[in-house]
Amino acid sequence: MNFKELMEFDKQIVEKYMDELLSINVIYEKKLIESMKYSVQAGGKRLRPILFLETIKLLNKNPFDFIEIACAIEMIHTYSLIHDDLPAMDNDSLRRGKPTNHVVFGEATAILAGDGLLNLAHEIMIAFVSKKLTKNNINGINIISKAAGINGMIAGQAVDIESEGKSIDIDTMKFIHSNKTGALIEASIVAAAVMSDADDTRIAALKTYAKYIGLAFQITDDILDIEGNEAELGKKIGSDELNDKATYPKYFGLEKSKEYAKNTITNAIESLNVFEPREKTFFVELADYIICRKK
Amino acid sequence: MNFKELMEFDKQIVEKYMDELLSINVIYEKKLIESMKYSVQAGGKRLRPILFLETIKLLNKNPFDFIEIACAIEMIHTYSLIHDDLPAMDNDSLRRGKPTNHVVFGEATAILAGDGLLNLAHEIMIAFVSKKLTKNNINGINIISKAAGINGMIAGQAVDIESEGKSIDIDTMKFIHSNKTGALIEASIVAAAVMSDADDTRIAALKTYAKYIGLAFQITDDILDIEGNEAELGKKIGSDELNDKATYPKYFGLEKSKEYAKNTITNAIESLNVFEPREKTFFVELADYIICRKK
Repeated sequence: MNFKELMEFDKQIVEKYMDELLSINVIYEKKLIESMKYSVQAGGKRLRPILFLETIKLLNKNPFDFIEIACAIEMIHTYSLIHDDLPAMDNDSLRRGKPTNHVVFGEATAILAGDGLLNLAHEIMIAFVSKKLTKNNINGINIISKAAGINGMIAGQAVDIESEGKSIDIDTMKFIHSNKTGALIEASIVAAAVMSDADDTRIAALKTYAKYIGLAFQITDDILDIEGNEAELGKKIGSDELNDKATYPKYFGLEKSKEYAKNTITNAIESLNVFEPREKTFFVELADYIICRKK
Repeated sequence: MNFKELMEFDKQIVEKYMDELLSINVIYEKKLIESMKYSVQAGGKRLRPILFLETIKLLNKNPFDFIEIACAIEMIHTYSLIHDDLPAMDNDSLRRGKPTNHVVFGEATAILAGDGLLNLAHEIMIAFVSKKLTKNNINGINIISKAAGINGMIAGQAVDIESEGKSIDIDTMKFIHSNKTGALIEASIVAAAVMSDADDTRIAALKTYAKYIGLAFQITDDILDIEGNEAELGKKIGSDELNDKATYPKYFGLEKSKEYAKNTITNAIESLNVFEPREKTFFVELADYIICRKK
């Protein structure tokens, strides 16, 4: 399979298993489950679970043995989007070309759907370790849970919200970006490495790679919010400027930001020197995809 | 120590350790941490962690070895209160005699503080198992996580919100109560039993006890919302009637509800027959406290 086919294959596998994990027969809380499914099934690149599964493969393990963890990561990502879109937060009504969760189901259900997905992700991860009780498995889910929390994703979102309309320094912007977006991307790769019993050298190399692509991903997101195509993106562009958000283009200008993203990708690829060229094809192509993507 | 002293001792220990777990030095997300601390430190009975710790003691283990789990349970309870109080949910402005989280910190931060506490609770539980990797420990946190989720607490809250102003049947009311309140109370006891390596007979007895006191707790809550003292409760009474909530008094009347609570407590105490009288003093007195409490 070439790069594009691999991406599509992983995406479909993750979506299939997420559907199964969300096939929950209930009598009373139908609306809650429906709203969780709505956001999980609303599409998306599925970048984080793909990174997780491809890292497992890179390290010669069977991705199907870890598929629930990939789904749990995507559920954490989805919950964060539902809560970020709420009126009290970014107040977005469109996501991936569809009305956001609270627009369809109301605010109360959207809050609970987010809570439900965050909790379910942890239930799935804990149940996984309960079945396969190893030090590396518990350490792997530890990495994911930490990245999602108040020293990771939630911290990034909290500072992002607080900083709206304020003039913030570059360090604060970097903090927001590396936590809000970078933390879970990094954890997807590093947790997979740990759970695949990789040695420290390989874990360290993959961690560096993950840091760089997380950064390049965010810079590209900022650029797409200026130059992107609304139809392809599935959301309105210009919202960063409208909400007076701190972005790379705002600090460095558009051209310098593009150059920065490109250099970051070069660094990402270089950090994989410890792997054989034939092993890392996917990760090299993925690094390029990160900055060339249109959505 | 007598019953009251034991309750107070456990409460103080849990509060001390929660303070430590929330002593997080951060540069940027100060407001987020502050809002999490605000709700965690706003008081409360600490019933769930007390149940957890006393069950550990009943089964001859050292509660200090499991203190983080007790704290994690209380954090889950606290997050659920923060989200329940939000304007989109119950829209409560007073809790434990203090302004609710969103009144003090704003809605966006309150949502993130809730998310943060739910995630932190899981981080703490996973880190605990990472240090003490046993089958019973992972199974214990599995029980807690499940009880908090969409087949437990969140389901109860979702159906509660959906049912407001509607005429619902008794089964639906029971579903709401047993999930919204009962699930985490039951899990506090059952998880402690599992993590203490109790045998199946004792686990089953404690599970039955937990189910009964969870039910009695909720009936009493409903009664207090009619007959309670606002100053003692730290919140307005009459909110169930105002929000047209399904309650036991609404279905069975006040006197029948009191009788029902009393019978439930008798059943709770009887279910502990497998334990020696001297072992179960605390749990017998606790059962009485559940229906005699003023807050």
